[in-house]
Formats: sequence, structure tokens, C-alpha cells
Amino acid sequence: MTSAKPARGDDQPETPVVPAPARMPAKRNATATRQRILEVAMAEFAEHGFSGSRIERIAASAAANVGMIYHYFGNKDDLYLAALEASYKIIRDREQTLDVDHANPRQALQALVELTFDFLSTDPHFVRLIMNENLMMGRTARRSATIPYMTRPLLEQLRTILARGQKEKIFLKEVDAENLYVSILGLCFIHVSNRYTLSSMFQHDFAEPDWLAKRRAIVVDVVTSYIVTKGGK
Amino acid sequence: MTSAKPARGDDQPETPVVPAPARMPAKRNATATRQRILEVAMAEFAEHGFSGSRIERIAASAAANVGMIYHYFGNKDDLYLAALEASYKIIRDREQTLDVDHANPRQALQALVELTFDFLSTDPHFVRLIMNENLMMGRTARRSATIPYMTRPLLEQLRTILARGQKEKIFLKEVDAENLYVSILGLCFIHVSNRYTLSSMFQHDFAEPDWLAKRRAIVVDVVTSYIVTKGGK
Repeated sequence: MTSAKPARGDDQPETPVVPAPARMPAKRNATATRQRILEVAMAEFAEHGFSGSRIERIAASAAANVGMIYHYFGNKDDLYLAALEASYKIIRDREQTLDVDHANPRQALQALVELTFDFLSTDPHFVRLIMNENLMMGRTARRSATIPYMTRPLLEQLRTILARGQKEKIFLKEVDAENLYVSILGLCFIHVSNRYTLSSMFQHDFAEPDWLAKRRAIVVDVVTSYIVTKGGK
Repeated sequence: MTSAKPARGDDQPETPVVPAPARMPAKRNATATRQRILEVAMAEFAEHGFSGSRIERIAASAAANVGMIYHYFGNKDDLYLAALEASYKIIRDREQTLDVDHANPRQALQALVELTFDFLSTDPHFVRLIMNENLMMGRTARRSATIPYMTRPLLEQLRTILARGQKEKIFLKEVDAENLYVSILGLCFIHVSNRYTLSSMFQHDFAEPDWLAKRRAIVVDVVTSYIVTKGGK
């Protein structure tokens, strides 16, 4: 998540919900408004899905008006695309804060797993947004050049971690970086995406903090056991 | 999946789409009709979600009428609950065909992983149904006594496999059966649930048969590496 939260009236007094003072440069004001609309849109689309989302509700929550939204983003489809890309950007940016070139490769891998786990378990919108987009068969993600573009540095990070660990002979050869990411994602995503059905199956809350802490350690173990050599254990 | 497919007019001539002959016992006829409605309902709810699904469309596809559906299932909520439970029953029944008491524990684990992988990758409705239910925050799964009841034999199977492998000293001690299932599910679910967004991220089709075959072997490896002891490798 970025530091600015969707403005919801008086709850977030630090976010300007009234017109900015005259001395604030117009461009900065426009950027802030655009960002505010985007963050409210992420929440709206995550909550209601694409077809259930309402531009009027986004305008009201962002202290903007419908005309401004169309001015900045075009139409509902394009606002949704922008919200989807902005959501991916949050996690992709966070991944890029990891130092994979110098940290111990095993610790770098663990840090990436933990970052993924924590992001998916705590971001209130990302998982629902992704689930909705997939139920719509990815018709909007398919239009994005940004989503694949932002994925490349992630894949590079994983390849760097793997290559460094392989050079130090602590990681197995022949681990596929893309599949490793899919495994990390699957292990970190399932208890969030399927929180409610798993809670019904096993009759306890899959978002309970103690359970999450235990699960987090297990996910690190599962990923590590897979790529660490016997000697590296 | 059961062998009978949803009747869709002339596409499925083997499924009776006209009133059954008079000599067919009424009870058997009623059971067949109920099952046909249920299978069409699973497809409808998976495709359109709960609120987008239409009883009229289910009736038409199942060669039933709306009155029959209400007669057999009560209301739309209860039909949806029945479809959700019936979907879980398909995978839970399939799991129970595995012989976990006599097979080599490592092979039994592999068989469970492969069964889960194959079911999720090939059943056309299950994953979408579960995603939709979770987006609705599990409000229907929560009403089900059958879903937790059907989960117990699965957990027992995993505990049996783990205990047998631990006794033979090929599996690590202290592996949590429930968490192991969540890991297996996550590894087998993600490329189906997130097929479209992953395909956009990595720019290839995550449902492509060669990719799935490779992924299936990797998932077995990830799960096995986690619980097999060094000596057991």
C-alpha cells in the first residue's frame, strides 16, 4: 500500500478532502486528486467487482466529481484498468525494495516469501481485485502492457537469488524461476482467497493472527525445503 | 465430475431431456431430475455467480420447470447451497478412492497431490464456484454442516499418510496435516484461479497442457521435499 489512504470524509483528515489552498501548484493538486480517485477506485472495484462498482460512489468517496473522473481516466473500463495496474504496482514496488544482490541468497528468498505473504494477508483490496479480474477471465489485465512490464524485475530478482544460491551450492540447479514464483504465490494466496471456505471446512478462522504467524513460517519452510540442497540445509 | 453431464438440449442426447417413460419408477425419475437440476445449477452458479444466476435458465437447461426446482430445493439460496455441497462432494468422494492404508506413504501422498491437481485443473466449475463463494465472504458455506463433515475423512487420510511415513522414518515429524492440505490446495489452485492474471504477467497461457504437466511434477516435488526426511529422499 502507498502511504496515502482513500479519503473517506473525516476519518482521514491528513488527506485533502476540500479544495487545495490557492498557493498549492495546480499540477500537484491534480496529481493528488488523481491518486485519491485511484485509491478509492481500487477499494470500490475490490469490494463490488467491476459491474457492481459505481462511478458516482467513487466520486463521492474521493471528494471528486464524476466529470473529474472521466477527465482523468476516460471511462469506467479505463479507470478499472488503472486501478488494477496501480494495485500491481504496490506489490511490485515493494518487491523492488529487497536487496537480492548482496543479501545471503537463502535470506533473500525468505524475505521475498515473507513480503509476499504479508502483503497478500494485509492488503485489504489486492486479493479480491485479482479474484474478480480472473472471474472476468482477465479481459482487462490482457489489455495492460504495464502488468507484464512490471513482472520482469520480479522474475529477474528470483533469477538473481537462484543463481547466487546455486553458485554457493546451497540451492538446487534447475529450479524454474517462474514456477517458483507461482508456488510462492499459491502458498501465500490460498488462505486469503479461500479464507471463508477453508474456515468452513476446518471450522476455525483462517485470518486469525496466531494461525497466520504459524502458516507464514510453514510457507517459508515449504519453499526453502524445495530449493535448498541437502548440504545447504 | 460425475459421469452425467448437464443436459443442454440436443448436445447431450444420452441425458433424458424429455419426460421419462411411464415404466420408469417415479422415485428413480425424481432422483435423476434432482441430479440433473443440481448439475446444471453448479454450472450456472460457477459461470454467473450467485446474483447473476437465473432459476429460469437452470430450469430450461435442465429440461425442468421452475416449480420443480422450488419443489426439490426450496429457494435460490438453498439450491445454491446444494450445488456448493454437491461440488465439494465430487472432490471429497474422489479422495476417498485413494488407498492410504496400504500404499507406500510417499506414493499415497503423491497420489493425493496429483488427484487434487488434476481435479482443480480439469473440473470446469469447482474453482469458479469456490472463488465466487469466497468473494461473498462464505455466507453460504457457513450454513453448511456437510462441508466440514466431508472434510474430516480427508484430514484423516492425510494424518494416516503422515503417521505411516513417520513410522517408516521417511517423513519428518511435526508436520501439521491441515496446513499440509492448505499447501497442497494452494499449489494446485493458483494457476487455475489466477490463470488469466498469471498469463498476463508472464505472457503465456497457464492452461496450456505442456505447462500443466510440468507444473504438476513441480507441485509433487515441492510437497514431497517439504515432508520427506533427508534419509527418505
